[in-house]
Order: sequence, then structure tokens, then C-alpha cells
Amino acid sequence: MRLVREEDLDDLARGAAVLGTGGGGNPYIGKLLAQQAIRERGPVTLVAAEEVPDDALVVQSAMMGAPTVMVEKLPAGDEVVRAFEMLQSYLGRRITHTTSGEAGGLNSTIPFVVAARMGIPLVDADGMGRAFPELQMLIPTLDGISCTPMALADEKGNTLILNTIDNHWTERLARSATVDMGCTAMIALYAMTGRQVKESMVLGTLSLGQELGRVIREARDAHRDAIAAVTERLRGRRIFKGRVTGVRRRTEAGFARGSTELEGVEEFAGSRLVVQFQNEHLVAIRDGRVVASVPDLIVLLDSESAEPVTTEEIRYGFRITAVAAHCDPRWRTPGGLALVGPRYFGYDFDYRPVEELNP
Amino acid sequence: MRLVREEDLDDLARGAAVLGTGGGGNPYIGKLLAQQAIRERGPVTLVAAEEVPDDALVVQSAMMGAPTVMVEKLPAGDEVVRAFEMLQSYLGRRITHTTSGEAGGLNSTIPFVVAARMGIPLVDADGMGRAFPELQMLIPTLDGISCTPMALADEKGNTLILNTIDNHWTERLARSATVDMGCTAMIALYAMTGRQVKESMVLGTLSLGQELGRVIREARDAHRDAIAAVTERLRGRRIFKGRVTGVRRRTEAGFARGSTELEGVEEFAGSRLVVQFQNEHLVAIRDGRVVASVPDLIVLLDSESAEPVTTEEIRYGFRITAVAAHCDPRWRTPGGLALVGPRYFGYDFDYRPVEELNP
Repeated sequence: MRLVREEDLDDLARGAAVLGTGGGGNPYIGKLLAQQAIRERGPVTLVAAEEVPDDALVVQSAMMGAPTVMVEKLPAGDEVVRAFEMLQSYLGRRITHTTSGEAGGLNSTIPFVVAARMGIPLVDADGMGRAFPELQMLIPTLDGISCTPMALADEKGNTLILNTIDNHWTERLARSATVDMGCTAMIALYAMTGRQVKESMVLGTLSLGQELGRVIREARDAHRDAIAAVTERLRGRRIFKGRVTGVRRRTEAGFARGSTELEGVEEFAGSRLVVQFQNEHLVAIRDGRVVASVPDLIVLLDSESAEPVTTEEIRYGFRITAVAAHCDPRWRTPGGLALVGPRYFGYDFDYRPVEELNP
Repeated sequence: MRLVREEDLDDLARGAAVLGTGGGGNPYIGKLLAQQAIRERGPVTLVAAEEVPDDALVVQSAMMGAPTVMVEKLPAGDEVVRAFEMLQSYLGRRITHTTSGEAGGLNSTIPFVVAARMGIPLVDADGMGRAFPELQMLIPTLDGISCTPMALADEKGNTLILNTIDNHWTERLARSATVDMGCTAMIALYAMTGRQVKESMVLGTLSLGQELGRVIREARDAHRDAIAAVTERLRGRRIFKGRVTGVRRRTEAGFARGSTELEGVEEFAGSRLVVQFQNEHLVAIRDGRVVASVPDLIVLLDSESAEPVTTEEIRYGFRITAVAAHCDPRWRTPGGLALVGPRYFGYDFDYRPVEELNP
């Protein structure tokens, strides 16, 4: 258990955006929202999963929608609390803790808003160990844990409670509502016991985010190679260095979909990398060959500053270094790959681990 | 107060389909569902609005979606009870009565299923005095009564509770969910006090439906002109007699949209009628001139049997007599016309009463 203060959010948002693999929301917006809540209500108590009582009632707080729209339609910070309170009132029990559904610049920081405003502790975990675009793409789904009851709230005052037969149906119904609500909504979902959190979540990822952010900052301040430092911490591989020559991006069905093309420099001169995304990076193809794919992490970093670059921010001319790293081992099981492997996203190839693709 | 028995449902479903103006659901399906519930649970107590205590909690039960799909995907009868129970549990109070949202072959009979299965009385009323395609198109909306909290349930087991800032938002979010659920859903909504029912509903319309059905049946049995009898009871006008020469129909955005074309016979020989619909008939255009439009009733009856013909049933070759009749006077106010007048549906003309258009 430790307190997270306003000044910790810089590292945390930056590092969480590394884990967000291009998605998970904009770290700058996420940081501001969390900092404002902490400024008003005081520091947030971050607890490790092992400190959470087995019978605790833990709920994830998040933002859902297209990151391209999130940066235009800033959340006020109240909607997520409204979603959370709606779910609490529907459950008819006090929710004792909140946690994060996915690692990402916004979805690692939004739970701080809820924790600060509701005065409850935040569990140091998330449901993926990275970000994925759809609601059912959490380890708890693999363990048969229901996403619902789930609450959604928009900035206008509309709210919704869903109860579905499986987590794919939750995604479908919640996505339509999110599109109607203007492509973003604040959500509260995956009510779990403390015991379920310990077994089915990816533990320690909020701290990992903060650590990754610190690693980047400290290396940069010491004029060391920040990209090498973060790659080492992720036990990842540098798969490309280059300059963005094109971005195709469309907001479609409530997602930001598209691809980024890069032209190589230095040892990658003459090479070309294409990174396809649906909110998050899905596949990296170098000179026609897949060099990384979901569920492994594909992280694009600014080649100068080592800042993670999200899919809605990336622009022509950006100098980018691409790093790929292993995902949580549970994603590499047959069940995990059925839920988030390349074939689920419509690709006609089998998953191969990033270590195998880049020996 | 009176009991409605299995054998009463024939007249009621037929007559309600007259008020359904082409929509409101298929009367045959509606009749079967209500008859089955009454057979299993006993007759339903129908009460007049004046018999309902002012502090009663009254909720409408209905089916939402495209009638074209309803006839393919038959409701089991349990879903509407599930929606009703969800709403009751969400409200945290016992719902004392159910009632009908709109008059129509299915939406006048579905509330009998709920009344029979829940063992509660049914209030003899509906929210429109006819059928309209969208959720906010009820007199209670004119009186500032909220559609939400509203519950939706599908046949698969998914449910949803909505709370919205206005009834247009309810329609928007509920329509998307209905489309996801396979274009039909069972719903419970417009929780009202007994006092609100007396002031804001159209009273006596379930009995009116039964009476219209009986008028048609008795005239037919006595070899009298059943169409003349029903037209007289509605204080309506015969605006066309002819044969269907074409039907354009598509299921779009959760609605059955399209138009029916007829070629005149007898005194209408040489004339042509086009009836455009969105679940319900919206506008009747004879030889290029509007002869009836929303919110007035446009009813298509089989020229031989006087059976009402719904928009999803109508086919090439059907012999049809079209009758137009006045709507509830509250629909003719500026507020009423803003909600359901021709301009709301995208037509570029002002509403004129059917009596003026056909003097």
C-alpha cells in the first residue's frame, strides 16, 4: 500500500501509454484528469492485490470509445463517477475498491479519478497487461467472469445498465450505445471479488506503468538511451526505426481504425514498416513479413524523446522507434489466442511469439 | 372493471390492428401470445383509468422493433415479463398495473401477457390512441413524463436498463440496442402514477379495439358492409379502394420502411394511391395530392373481409380499402405536431386535418 500523489502521475501516464500499445487513451488528458481529482480530494491509496480482502467488491473504471474522438470531446471527470455510482446502486452493495480494465494513458489514470472522488483504494492491476480495443478482451473473460452488470454514462447525462449472456454481447451492446453517445462513454464494469482479482487480473501494472515512465524520464535526464532503457525493462526488441510516411485513420463503428507506414533509417534504411491498428496496434509488418502481432505488445516511441505515441496522435514526419515485447503468458494459451489473437482481428495467419519472430 | 378472456382476444387483436394504422405489430401473433398466457394463468382484469388509485405504479409493456422481423422471430412471451421484472427490481417498488404504450395488433395484446403472468390488472388505455414508430411519440412525452427508467430484454437473455435526459435519447439508445438484439426487443417503460395515467394517456383504447373488432366481425357475420361499419365507428372517411400494384419495403435502422402503391377500382378507377410507411402508415397521397397524414390514422382494410392489413403483410394483388380518421386532439396541438407531424418524418408540408382534406 502506498499513496499516489499529483506529481507521480506524469511518470504513470507516460509509462501506461507504453503498455497501451498505441491505444488506451491519451496520456496527457488522462494525467490532467487524475491530477485534478487528486488536487481536489488528496492522494490515492494504491494497494497490491494481495492486500485486498477476498470478499472485497472491486469494479473497473474506464473510458470506452474511439481515441480519435476522446481528444476532441474531453471528459469532465464526473461521468465516470456517475457510471460508478449507478453500478453501485444497481448492485445494492458498497463497492470497496476500483481498478483498471486496461493499461493505457487514459485507462490507467481514469481509475485514479474514481478512487479520489469516491475515497476508495485503487488496486494495482489491470485486466490485460496492455490495452485491447474490445470489452471482452480481458483475462477475467478467459476465467468465465462476467463483464456485466455494467454501467455506461455520457457527458450529457444519459446512463445505461447492461446485463448480458456473455462478454461478447456486452461489447456489442455497449459499443452501439457508445457510438450513439458520441463515440465515447465512461464505464464501470467487471464487478469481482478480491479473490477473483488476485487470480484473474494482471497484477502490479499500475506500478509497472509508473516505473516505465520513470525509466524513460531518468534515462532522458541523464542523457542515456531512454529507448534502450524501456526496451530492456519490457524485455522487448527494437523492430524498427524510421520516419512516418503515411497515416490512414478513420473513426468507424466506434473505433479508430487504420495503419501507419514508416520508412527506415540507420540499420533499417531501405526497409518499410506498416503498423495496422484498431485503437491499439494489432500487427507490425516489415518488408512484407509479420514481425509482431497481437497479443504481443507493439509500442511506437518518439525516437528523440522516447515518449510513447498513440494511434490518434501519430502524424506524417514523426521519427519513430518501434519496440515489440511479450504479452502476459495467459494470452498465449489457445483460449487467449481465440479471444485476442490475429485471427480474431481478421488476419489469416497464426500467432507466433515476438521472441520467435525476432530471434 | 371486467375480465378479459381467451375468446375476447380475437376481436381485440383485430380492432387494435385497425388503430395500429399498419403497424403496432402483427395481430395474429399478438392474439396467440395473449391467449396462451390467459389459458395458463386465467382471465385478465381490465380496469378503467378512473378505477386506478392516484398513487398506483403503472408501467407499459410492449414490443419494440421492425414488424418485418417480428413475424420471423416470434417472441416466446417470457422476455416481456423479464423486462417488466427487471424494471420492477430497478425501481425497487412493486408495479401495481401494466398498460399499453400504443394501440396495435401486438402492442395492445402484449400487455395481457404481462398482466396474466404477473397477476396484476391491466389499465384500459394506451399512450397514443394509435401506433407510432418511435418511443418518444406518446402523449405522456407532451406532458413531460420520462420514458425512463426503461428495461429492454431479448430472447437470448440480454437485458438493458436505460436512464436518459429526454425521451428522444431513449429512442436513440433503445433503437440501437434493439437492432443489435436482432431488430426486436421486449420493453417495459414510462413508469407513471395512477394520476398521470388519467391525465396523460388515451383512455379506453383497449376496449375501443375490442369494440372495433366486434363491429367488423358482426357486420361480416350479418353480411353487412363491415368497412362502412368500422369507418362509421371511427368517424372516418373512405379515401380509396383499389388493388396493390407494388410494395417497396426494407428493414432499415430497426424500422420497416417503404411504400405501397394501389390502383383504384369503382369510384376510384383511374386513380392511384401511394401510402408511405415507417412501421406505421405516415402519408397517403392520391393522384399526387396528400389526402391524409400523421398524426391522423391511415387504415388499410382488406376490401372483402375488412381485416386490417399491416405494413409487413401487404402484398401485390391485395384488394384494399383505405380509411382515414382523426387522431387524438392532443396530437393536433403545436407540441403534438412537433413530435409526430409530417415535418418530423421529413415531409415538406404542414399537417392538415383529415376532415379538411376530405370534406
